[in-house]
Amino acid sequence: MKINETKSIKTFGGATKYFEHASGITKTQMKFSTFLPEQKVENAIIWLSGLTCTEENFITKAGSQKLLKDSKTMIICPDTSPRGLDLPGEHESYDFGSGAGFYINSLTEGYKDHYNMYDYIKDEIVTILKEHFKVKNISIMGHSMGGHGALVLGLREKKLFKSVSAFSPIVNPLQSPWGQKAFKGYLGEELTGARLFDTTELINSGVIRKDTLLVDQGTDDEFLKENLLTSHLSQACEQAGQKLEVKYREGYNHSYFYISTFIDEHIEFHLKALEA
Amino acid sequence: MKINETKSIKTFGGATKYFEHASGITKTQMKFSTFLPEQKVENAIIWLSGLTCTEENFITKAGSQKLLKDSKTMIICPDTSPRGLDLPGEHESYDFGSGAGFYINSLTEGYKDHYNMYDYIKDEIVTILKEHFKVKNISIMGHSMGGHGALVLGLREKKLFKSVSAFSPIVNPLQSPWGQKAFKGYLGEELTGARLFDTTELINSGVIRKDTLLVDQGTDDEFLKENLLTSHLSQACEQAGQKLEVKYREGYNHSYFYISTFIDEHIEFHLKALEA
Repeated sequence: MKINETKSIKTFGGATKYFEHASGITKTQMKFSTFLPEQKVENAIIWLSGLTCTEENFITKAGSQKLLKDSKTMIICPDTSPRGLDLPGEHESYDFGSGAGFYINSLTEGYKDHYNMYDYIKDEIVTILKEHFKVKNISIMGHSMGGHGALVLGLREKKLFKSVSAFSPIVNPLQSPWGQKAFKGYLGEELTGARLFDTTELINSGVIRKDTLLVDQGTDDEFLKENLLTSHLSQACEQAGQKLEVKYREGYNHSYFYISTFIDEHIEFHLKALEA
Repeated sequence: MKINETKSIKTFGGATKYFEHASGITKTQMKFSTFLPEQKVENAIIWLSGLTCTEENFITKAGSQKLLKDSKTMIICPDTSPRGLDLPGEHESYDFGSGAGFYINSLTEGYKDHYNMYDYIKDEIVTILKEHFKVKNISIMGHSMGGHGALVLGLREKKLFKSVSAFSPIVNPLQSPWGQKAFKGYLGEELTGARLFDTTELINSGVIRKDTLLVDQGTDDEFLKENLLTSHLSQACEQAGQKLEVKYREGYNHSYFYISTFIDEHIEFHLKALEA
């Protein structure tokens, strides 16, 4: 697969780089950013961003480079949806369409040809990591909608990802207003196959991993009660025997200030799995 | 002076806070951001941002909180100009008017009533630090246009600031296209009193500090040769006996990725002076 480097900026001895490429899966031009430490890279962490984000938010705000700089692990931050299209309703709200791909494969008219972010991450981003960056081991994490994506991809693609973590994930989208709206838009009113993209439903139906899922959640998160529903995940994991560590952070909200405070713990968690 | 807290977000055990207040000096509503560590604050570092920035850039991108979190030192990031006005030419370019106050006191029609960012920092920001935050010691640093501001304020207000540092500062604005344009806009074609706002000219005329100025400069900075002119500062300091440490950083550019790489060294430099 051909990718074009559009920017390279020296950062912590390594480089922050931006790329774009023609995607066979979303049938659009896709963008992603990376941080590459100075050493030859052997591993990667995929970061999936939340609603309204692009490939830019995490790499500029989370402060992940400082800990990765002495490792052999890169980070890659894909965009959150296809861009440059003009599908019906695509640009009308922040929680559906552009900036809100929800890491699922669509079935609805128009969207099914482009909004297949699950496959885009699983196939194209992973292929880019292996072919272009010569990466051996991959882990996955994300925030909010991207935390949902990381958990779903991590549970379903067990062998592909060494470890899985999430900040403030939407753990049961079928029970949340955000998930209901987006899933109906992408899968249709009957929500065909939606349970394959719902972490709690997956775990309830026995799709689990042997390792521990790491979940981080601020107690003052404005979206916790209605949209994130962390307790649904805890319940499902307990019943299904999925190991889970939820770190509740007293007084923290949903922002990148919160993420930057605890990003090192997640990176350490993944480095342990990747460099083992 | 009355200030209103508009946002407070828990960060690294302390808080990122945003404020606004009616300024008697700029005669507009002004904004600034702060990071307050968990401990009771005794000191402050003022960060002055560069062209196009607001109170938001540094606090979200530089990664300064991690080192400050265990200190008794806060950081405060003022906006880079008055806002909400509609002066002639104020919004036509990125390097003059809004987002480009250059930390000087204006003389030209319209601007002289509002664009007095030198006094705004020296008087109002300092008063806010002392009265509202009960700060004892203050240091100052900045980037690019804000590096220029930090050096000029630091040299002229020796007793007010314990230490002074700058990333990629415009050290001799009267010899640079950016400075020429802005200074003529704010001071008039005859550049009345401009030398009081030019670091190199100040040092050449004997305005020096006893302590060392710390300057950081990327060698791949796209503005180095035409606008920053670091060598002019080195020459002036050598002739005038001003102690100066210039850290050239091989391959780094003008961005926040570069700043975040070296911000800890500057914070350590200031903490040493502030907490001595």
